[in-house]
Amino acid sequence: MSKTEIVELTVLCLIQDGEKILLQNRVKKDWKGYTLPGGHVEAGESFVDAVKREMKEEAGLNIQNPKLVGIKQFPFKNEEGVDCRYIVLLFKAEEFKGEVVSSSEGEMTWVRYDQLSSMDTVDDLEDLLDVFNNPDLTEFQYLVDGDVWTVSKK
Amino acid sequence: MSKTEIVELTVLCLIQDGEKILLQNRVKKDWKGYTLPGGHVEAGESFVDAVKREMKEEAGLNIQNPKLVGIKQFPFKNEEGVDCRYIVLLFKAEEFKGEVVSSSEGEMTWVRYDQLSSMDTVDDLEDLLDVFNNPDLTEFQYLVDGDVWTVSKK
Repeated sequence: MSKTEIVELTVLCLIQDGEKILLQNRVKKDWKGYTLPGGHVEAGESFVDAVKREMKEEAGLNIQNPKLVGIKQFPFKNEEGVDCRYIVLLFKAEEFKGEVVSSSEGEMTWVRYDQLSSMDTVDDLEDLLDVFNNPDLTEFQYLVDGDVWTVSKK
Repeated sequence: MSKTEIVELTVLCLIQDGEKILLQNRVKKDWKGYTLPGGHVEAGESFVDAVKREMKEEAGLNIQNPKLVGIKQFPFKNEEGVDCRYIVLLFKAEEFKGEVVSSSEGEMTWVRYDQLSSMDTVDDLEDLLDVFNNPDLTEFQYLVDGDVWTVSKK
């Protein structure tokens, strides 16, 4: 009996400096608006190394001691119509070195939490930040029923 | 370009009550000795639900507010010789209800940390517990070079 499944593995990072967090004004059409920087885990790569690499590539920062604070997941079908699982490891980093530099993925901006409500963020940013910052939450799961996606936080 | 890979998804849980932790004297031949209870994540299952279900099945306990504290991974080849990744989500629970009941996987026993060194534990338990309990560690990765497996903790 096979216990494996097909998974897309990614990381997201909340880089926080006091009351400010670092957001990317993402320009790709599939997912547009202010969001946390992140990207794919490469084959065989350490997850900690993956989030450090992505933050260097997208934000120009050398993050230190990133902490795994939660996990996001949702189901999807690949190009062959096979059921797959999308997994996002959620890291938080409050230590970093270097100066912020933007990438082709989008411009990076420090934003205070109290500015978020007036910004054009991606849809699920508020729920995601809740999972990052609420110590009683560890998982963000999209439950999918046809075209209806519901957020389940646990 | 496909960004997916073949993954086996599992959970482990450190159930802690003060100075004592709950270990399973695992009887299966592939992995024998005192170890943390755990098991496979089912298709589409919430990871939090998975660890709660496994702790009920293997230890008889209803754990509450399990926290994701780290992640373990190692590469392996499936039956077709395809490169896969084994992922273990590491949860810690200090709240639970019910009485400990053992399962066919192995007998459950409360063990004090200072008893561990004299017990027949699985090989990597000490390194794993280090990742569970050291706030500066978040990942346990086996780096595999031929028959040589090296633990990398980050």
